[in-house]
Amino acid sequence: MRGHVAEIRKDSINGSWVISAPERAQRPQQSTLDNQQSLCPFCCGNEAETPPAVFTLRDPNPIHPEWCVRVVPNRYPALSPHSDEQTRSDSASAPAIGAHEVIIESPEHIEDMAVLDEAQFVRILAAYRQRLAALGGDERWRCVLLFKNQGIAAGGSLLHVHSQLIAMPIVPPALERELAGARAYHAATGSCGYCATIARELSASVRIVSVNENYLAFCPYISRVAYETWIFPRRHHARFEASKPEHDIDLARALRGVLSRIGYVLDSRLFNYIIHTGSSHESDSSYYHWHIEVLPRLVQIGGFEWGTGCYINSKTPEECARSLRQVAL
Amino acid sequence: MRGHVAEIRKDSINGSWVISAPERAQRPQQSTLDNQQSLCPFCCGNEAETPPAVFTLRDPNPIHPEWCVRVVPNRYPALSPHSDEQTRSDSASAPAIGAHEVIIESPEHIEDMAVLDEAQFVRILAAYRQRLAALGGDERWRCVLLFKNQGIAAGGSLLHVHSQLIAMPIVPPALERELAGARAYHAATGSCGYCATIARELSASVRIVSVNENYLAFCPYISRVAYETWIFPRRHHARFEASKPEHDIDLARALRGVLSRIGYVLDSRLFNYIIHTGSSHESDSSYYHWHIEVLPRLVQIGGFEWGTGCYINSKTPEECARSLRQVAL
Repeated sequence: MRGHVAEIRKDSINGSWVISAPERAQRPQQSTLDNQQSLCPFCCGNEAETPPAVFTLRDPNPIHPEWCVRVVPNRYPALSPHSDEQTRSDSASAPAIGAHEVIIESPEHIEDMAVLDEAQFVRILAAYRQRLAALGGDERWRCVLLFKNQGIAAGGSLLHVHSQLIAMPIVPPALERELAGARAYHAATGSCGYCATIARELSASVRIVSVNENYLAFCPYISRVAYETWIFPRRHHARFEASKPEHDIDLARALRGVLSRIGYVLDSRLFNYIIHTGSSHESDSSYYHWHIEVLPRLVQIGGFEWGTGCYINSKTPEECARSLRQVAL
Repeated sequence: MRGHVAEIRKDSINGSWVISAPERAQRPQQSTLDNQQSLCPFCCGNEAETPPAVFTLRDPNPIHPEWCVRVVPNRYPALSPHSDEQTRSDSASAPAIGAHEVIIESPEHIEDMAVLDEAQFVRILAAYRQRLAALGGDERWRCVLLFKNQGIAAGGSLLHVHSQLIAMPIVPPALERELAGARAYHAATGSCGYCATIARELSASVRIVSVNENYLAFCPYISRVAYETWIFPRRHHARFEASKPEHDIDLARALRGVLSRIGYVLDSRLFNYIIHTGSSHESDSSYYHWHIEVLPRLVQIGGFEWGTGCYINSKTPEECARSLRQVAL
């Protein structure tokens, strides 16, 4: 029996959205699993603890022949593709439909992504590309967000290394502002604002963390949190899914490098990352430039951030980049 | 010697703002004080540990004759009124000037605001009114935000009960969206959108937490987090400072009641609250309605919230309000 109907509710005054998802209250927490000595549902051998996979990747030289990356629908989804209840759509709410998947990034019980090797990062990126393309192609979804919460204090429920994909029938406000700003920049200058940022950062060099042939990582000028790092493809691509698989090894090196450097400098494995990618329903690929934003979780947000939407960062991106750059990998 | 210059930096693409405040890195944390068995700088008797008070309130029948509420400039401010360095103001940054004050809400080392009595809440509200009016009257500040972070996991650095006031030379994006939405609602309907919400909530009654003659508390339809509660004056007032001091006892009862109920139901004293109030530079007081938003901190925000600006709430406001209402105070 379903308890309550999920809804996407809209604030009639400030226009923000909330997903009301009462069934998610039942999802297991790591502390509960540990106390009950329950199985980790993401470990190889415990596949019956999750819904059936929607995508499975196998390693050509396997230690675990069953799978090396496995994508499953979230058992306690924020949004589901088919609502079996009447969904409302009026000025105050949108249909609570969408998709919520979990990308299980190792068959073994690894808790820190940075300890996986580059080959495994390449496989994970292939899974990201496949699922972003599959969900992005569905006309119902206006936004497909891929993100990772590593650690309980970073919003994770379970510790086994994984990312999540949420597809939504709305364009969320943060994405809308970013797309509108990127479009306005392009309209005003005739070029991509992110390409300009990349050129400026490479030239200034003080905020650069790492550079390879196809990707660069830097601490952005407007870092919201200390050690925030963004990873960009050096050449213009609007969408992650359209990036070249043959460059994945460079992205794997950049991403793994950033996570290792952050873990070493901060002695903390708590972070979020988010893939910012353009919509596959958008034919104009000139103004947006996909990238990954990595946000270490050193401090808690508080009333100031809730009230203003601004952030106070007590470390400069220049000093953070210097510390991260100096780590010998 | 000052290390780095504070700056307010603007994202050239999405328009968001960050305060880069390197000196705040030196502020003491509760864990450091505890380890060093240092004095709590907010306790009565340790006044020398803070800058001189800008406002002091005395109790007519004092246990502590020196003060019962004390407001001091933050020793490690995010923003200061006078910058002794050249401040820049261009498309990418605004002058890093502002004010950052701490309202110390008890002379004794109390950590949970809800244990203070109603008379002390009334004194605290008087201090809020005085400081909001003083900073709000300064033409340089476009926003004056009063907020509380209770508990380390809610963003607090020190545990002694206190709130903070930050005055900024910009209108931050969250406030701008709220004011624009409120203005648009008023322009379209000729009435205040919040007055309409209050009437609707009183009529529906399912999300009401408490009501007295002058104030009501309810869990909003678009609650971002479980047990989120908003407190509104029942009659239209745009600004907190313009609310009537003789009604403060009702606001004290409403606020203290909400914090006690949340503490009892959640068995947690971690929360943020924010006073949302109109600008004193705005002559039109018809469209905005001041209120307090209380956000218990049960779950961590993660990549989804960073990436979308949306929230997933796994408890309905109706069930939260029912639980809070049922607490016998």
